[in-house]
Amino acid sequence: MLTSVYFIAITAEAMSGALAAGRRNMDLFGVAVIAFLTALGGGTVRDILLGNFPVTWTQHPSYIYMTLTGGLVTIAIARFMRHLRQLFLVLDAIGLVAFTIIGCNVALELGYEPIVVVMSGITTGIFGGIIRDIMCGRVPQVLRREIYACVSLVVAVLYLFLLRQGVGEGVTQLAAFSVGLLLRMVAIRWRVSLPVFRYSQARWG
Amino acid sequence: MLTSVYFIAITAEAMSGALAAGRRNMDLFGVAVIAFLTALGGGTVRDILLGNFPVTWTQHPSYIYMTLTGGLVTIAIARFMRHLRQLFLVLDAIGLVAFTIIGCNVALELGYEPIVVVMSGITTGIFGGIIRDIMCGRVPQVLRREIYACVSLVVAVLYLFLLRQGVGEGVTQLAAFSVGLLLRMVAIRWRVSLPVFRYSQARWG
Amino acid sequence: MLTSVYFIAITAEAMSGALAAGRRNMDLFGVAVIAFLTALGGGTVRDILLGNFPVTWTQHPSYIYMTLTGGLVTIAIARFMRHLRQLFLVLDAIGLVAFTIIGCNVALELGYEPIVVVMSGITTGIFGGIIRDIMCGRVPQVLRREIYACVSLVVAVLYLFLLRQGVGEGVTQLAAFSVGLLLRMVAIRWRVSLPVFRYSQARWG
Repeated sequence: MLTSVYFIAITAEAMSGALAAGRRNMDLFGVAVIAFLTALGGGTVRDILLGNFPVTWTQHPSYIYMTLTGGLVTIAIARFMRHLRQLFLVLDAIGLVAFTIIGCNVALELGYEPIVVVMSGITTGIFGGIIRDIMCGRVPQVLRREIYACVSLVVAVLYLFLLRQGVGEGVTQLAAFSVGLLLRMVAIRWRVSLPVFRYSQARWG
Repeated sequence: MLTSVYFIAITAEAMSGALAAGRRNMDLFGVAVIAFLTALGGGTVRDILLGNFPVTWTQHPSYIYMTLTGGLVTIAIARFMRHLRQLFLVLDAIGLVAFTIIGCNVALELGYEPIVVVMSGITTGIFGGIIRDIMCGRVPQVLRREIYACVSLVVAVLYLFLLRQGVGEGVTQLAAFSVGLLLRMVAIRWRVSLPVFRYSQARWG
Repeated sequence: MLTSVYFIAITAEAMSGALAAGRRNMDLFGVAVIAFLTALGGGTVRDILLGNFPVTWTQHPSYIYMTLTGGLVTIAIARFMRHLRQLFLVLDAIGLVAFTIIGCNVALELGYEPIVVVMSGITTGIFGGIIRDIMCGRVPQVLRREIYACVSLVVAVLYLFLLRQGVGEGVTQLAAFSVGLLLRMVAIRWRVSLPVFRYSQARWG
């Protein structure tokens, strides 16, 4: 199940990358690059940080083609995107949760400490979006918006906790998905945000 | 031959990095850092993605000194740069093609899939420029301009295709260089661009 | 001694990251991420560049907790920060020197060339700050300001030079700290800067 969800996830992320590239008037090549980086950048950063070579997508050409296709199809259907906003937000949330769980699993298999497992999940979940925003010249939205990165944190902690309690992997994944999606939907619906830190001292360290 | 072209390539890239740093009023140290990252950043990202350790430049101090020299010399001759624009564009194009071919070779030797070989070539060709632009706070030009990254793609695909047809390495490199330089010169001369994707929906995913 | 100084160093860097995040109105999660990246990003980039896996902080959860704590505590005490400016600048300078020496040591133990050892020290010293600035959408200050990155260079070269002259490690560290802190304090006090390279040609390479 996680695999088919994963395909939905990377396609949704690739689309969000393509739209961001379009906002910066990038050419077709740029759209493809940003789509790829948004969809597979989080997993790439995770693999590099954990020393997990070869990097996952280098062994799965289908992932690469899927992100490029997702990016280029987005150009064709961009005019309809605003009618698909609800659907898109759901797919994006599914992607966030799927990426987080996969990231936890990779670190677990490599025998890393619990805190590193959680960070691996979060990195996989949010770093593609961070790379997208940096490449498009804007401050990473996932670090400012209504709880997004935080959903990744909750999912990772819950996932690891349930596994360590001896709960089966299927049930654990289902629970993580339910809680993650619910939390994200609530956050979007009522615009729930973490407290924001405002600091205006002109210059410092 | 590829080695001597490579030296031209990293010097040209280092110079382009130094000029970008100068536009941001960086100090001597900043100029050296940006020159280094522009010239050797693409190969570094490639080595890390492919798990090709130790990273190439750590084994070749001469590369490092060459980029630093290129960067600092640029400061001295900056006032004449506009008279050298044509020359510079040719050197830059040579660099793009040389980097691309070298990137393909590294991935080929490590036994990666064809699509990864092509991506390795492109990464080596364009990522130095992307890092330069990110460090200097501008949206990567290679993803927006008249076909630049696309030249790297064409060169990589052609190079891999000819090699797999059994064409000798010398002829293959010559063909890749000819086509790559021609394509880039045509693109500059007639300002050929890929179609641009414009998207203005305010906020999304 | 270097270990306890290291703890001061990562805390000071985490605080500088948190303040930068606050200037961009990031939420609590964003503050924690930027604090972490600022404090441990330099060492992470170094470990990846040198192929030094597993990455240091993945083996030391205490480092992670310390940066997160440092980041979140900063929010609580932000209103008093301007009274602490002098102290903060000293801590930051201590961090710069400590990071540089540690970075040199890592490369030395892996048997890298002297130039790579120096670059490893500088990378560890300044790259956290570069990542912080990129994530917060500003051109890296360490490449523009009164001599900061340069302090790292001087410390790294001096440290390597003394070690190779057969001077004991304790004395060498003391010398590197004294010179580094003095240089940084002089640079701050009298606003000493490296020459700046200004270049205004609109577009180029």
